[in-house]
Amino acid sequence: MDFSSKLLEQAVNEMSQLPGIGKRTALRLVLHLLKQPESQTLALSKALVDLKTEVKFCSNCHNISDSTLCEICASPNRQKEIVCVVEDIRDVMAIENTSQYKGLYHVLGGKISPMDGVGPSQLNIGSLVEKAREGSISEIIFALSSTLEGDTTNFYIFKKLQGIDIKTSTIARGIAVGDELEFADEVTLGRSITNRIPFESSLKS
Amino acid sequence: MDFSSKLLEQAVNEMSQLPGIGKRTALRLVLHLLKQPESQTLALSKALVDLKTEVKFCSNCHNISDSTLCEICASPNRQKEIVCVVEDIRDVMAIENTSQYKGLYHVLGGKISPMDGVGPSQLNIGSLVEKAREGSISEIIFALSSTLEGDTTNFYIFKKLQGIDIKTSTIARGIAVGDELEFADEVTLGRSITNRIPFESSLKS
Repeated sequence: MDFSSKLLEQAVNEMSQLPGIGKRTALRLVLHLLKQPESQTLALSKALVDLKTEVKFCSNCHNISDSTLCEICASPNRQKEIVCVVEDIRDVMAIENTSQYKGLYHVLGGKISPMDGVGPSQLNIGSLVEKAREGSISEIIFALSSTLEGDTTNFYIFKKLQGIDIKTSTIARGIAVGDELEFADEVTLGRSITNRIPFESSLKS
Repeated sequence: MDFSSKLLEQAVNEMSQLPGIGKRTALRLVLHLLKQPESQTLALSKALVDLKTEVKFCSNCHNISDSTLCEICASPNRQKEIVCVVEDIRDVMAIENTSQYKGLYHVLGGKISPMDGVGPSQLNIGSLVEKAREGSISEIIFALSSTLEGDTTNFYIFKKLQGIDIKTSTIARGIAVGDELEFADEVTLGRSITNRIPFESSLKS
């Protein structure tokens, strides 16, 4: 693309570094900002810099937080002996939205993925194993996505927990509520049959 | 959405003000920035603020420019008596990419659209009529999109030019090069028949 202004080119280039934003979309966004009042651009830019420079991570669960202990970890109403292992903050938000979980979280910050250069040492795995070893938690729930990377990460953590007396579980995989059986993929349908539950417990929720 | 951090919420809110960016996408973009080095966020934020505060518009054609006269208007190789009227800078870039046009541009900055609260006074129409009245240009080419707003704007300018001795033209509408006739819409096909051109001139390009 040929830009008539270096400033414009710079802004488009920076904007198109974001995932899923190509040069054309970046140009559209930047031209939109140009048409809006200056305050909007300043607010956006300040919010991004503030977040990047001032954000804290919860010292217990590594969730994004404004203080050293996040609201969930600090709450007296949560079951502190149950820990749900998730990939990132979006998973925390998704599970929180269900209002079905009353334990704490442990945010790994990613999945083991050699293809993307992410090894176990870059993830918050050590502190999880440490928590388990201290004996302050009784159950670890694995809630990573069931992809190759997710399964690898689950298994890596599971191996690390060997020899520690702790209950581990993984969230149920199966046909989504409201979905037609005939359209489900074989793996999911197979798992939902293998891991069938007593009918009475399905009446609870 | 429930955010665990006010800083994060602020950044997502600002990001989701951009057109086509919802809260979920904004969260994805913001979390991506959080994972990247601080320099990327600073560069993006600086580029946006620099653009907004320092950008200039060409005093002749209203194109975005780093100086008071844009490269196109300043170039000695362009035919300064032909002016192509376009909606915004993206149209200039699209036409420039064809390498078929050697005249100048006139960027309106939008289209007349009462629905969006855009009237003729918010567009760069006055300076175009002024240019035509001065007699420094011989032809005005209308290259707005053929929507209700585009046609309205074309017609408004056309009426303003009444009484001024100037040639006006509009870009050709028709079947796109490489397109199948049978899939073309009736209006486009109809126009391409009405506005047929001598066969010899089709051999030129």
